[in-house]
Amino acid sequence: MTKVTAQMSVSLDGCYAGRRHGGAPADWLDSAEAAGFFRVTRWVTAAMAWRERQGFAGGEQNADSNIVAEAFESAGAYVMGRRMADGGEVPWGEEPPFRAPVFVVTHRPRETVRRGATSFTYVTDGVASAVEQARAAAGGKNVAIAGGGTLLRQVIAAGLLDELELHVAPVVLGAGMRLLDAGLGLADKEGIELTPTRVIHTPNVTHLRYTVDGRAALVLDDRGSGADLRGADVP
Amino acid sequence: MTKVTAQMSVSLDGCYAGRRHGGAPADWLDSAEAAGFFRVTRWVTAAMAWRERQGFAGGEQNADSNIVAEAFESAGAYVMGRRMADGGEVPWGEEPPFRAPVFVVTHRPRETVRRGATSFTYVTDGVASAVEQARAAAGGKNVAIAGGGTLLRQVIAAGLLDELELHVAPVVLGAGMRLLDAGLGLADKEGIELTPTRVIHTPNVTHLRYTVDGRAALVLDDRGSGADLRGADVP
Repeated sequence: MTKVTAQMSVSLDGCYAGRRHGGAPADWLDSAEAAGFFRVTRWVTAAMAWRERQGFAGGEQNADSNIVAEAFESAGAYVMGRRMADGGEVPWGEEPPFRAPVFVVTHRPRETVRRGATSFTYVTDGVASAVEQARAAAGGKNVAIAGGGTLLRQVIAAGLLDELELHVAPVVLGAGMRLLDAGLGLADKEGIELTPTRVIHTPNVTHLRYTVDGRAALVLDDRGSGADLRGADVP
Repeated sequence: MTKVTAQMSVSLDGCYAGRRHGGAPADWLDSAEAAGFFRVTRWVTAAMAWRERQGFAGGEQNADSNIVAEAFESAGAYVMGRRMADGGEVPWGEEPPFRAPVFVVTHRPRETVRRGATSFTYVTDGVASAVEQARAAAGGKNVAIAGGGTLLRQVIAAGLLDELELHVAPVVLGAGMRLLDAGLGLADKEGIELTPTRVIHTPNVTHLRYTVDGRAALVLDDRGSGADLRGADVP
């Protein structure tokens, strides 16, 4: 059965990149945003399965690489934000790594682009429509939300995500672009409940996979006592 | 050898409580801050080892409870923030759960208070002094930073923390009191590097333990290619 899945590399404090770069695109590589992004995705860059898709030699064949390979293999179609698609158009070149239909959420209509085994279809009627089009194109495999963070947050906020995997790099950025923040639009005393389904840890990164159960009220817990334990020692 | 350790329960997005409560103390239990705090610490409340220290009956004897027991047993002394100490004074009663010397970082001098097997010593010359006094009192066991979040962030920012364990509850709060944020004072292109040392996961919570290696520059990675891959597909 097709699931809508997403994965993202983040720091221990939940940032997928450093502070957002507001300058000229040519300066992006030197930005704090890029420095954070490269740090949290270092485990991917080193993985043979990622390097093969990019056309790079070398890389490590290990548990981390297997997770990258699994992600590519399980995706029958992708949904992508416009900023990511624009940024990738040149570097991905004639053989983008997806090798599947990609649906780009944008406000600007554009003809479908075909590059090697990948197609980019531009969807202007919203994220839910893009997910549905990807589902129809996925051939029974999963719909993977490719990113970036803003699009993924929209998908989560809309209740469209079935499974979330965070790859937690062992670094704290302190500030940066956070995946899960106030942009989710949760109310006071409301959370999104998850069920952990898989944990894989390596020296480079901890892979945390969850089923997304959805929004739920945060119910007051009396600490099992009935007493007022507002300052009770809990870790 | 004495290590300076800390542990905290957080949501998947790094919040140890909901949005900070700015109202009257009597309203705290009904606040969003409390609702988030109770959700992320639910696994603790249910643990027999925590309930025993609080004088409550029941609780579950499981892997989560073992981690609570280990934390209490390994701590020879504690360092605590003033807000947490004030909030706990009444509910902890005549037998606080620490059963060890506690050093409270505060601006207000106060005589040492003894309650059962716990003492509270008020330290007015800063967090580094409190950690040193706790180290001298720990009898070779660890110094545990008890919290709250503001104090722990100060200890991390000052480079005083050797080991950090986050207990990640399977919930997203979206907004709330974050442990690791801009208050750490990290520069652009600077991070705090960690080494993962233990991962234990249960249906209730994922326990991530790290050695804190310290601040380091985030070095630009060329993605192994030399090419400009600013939009490359990485999870």
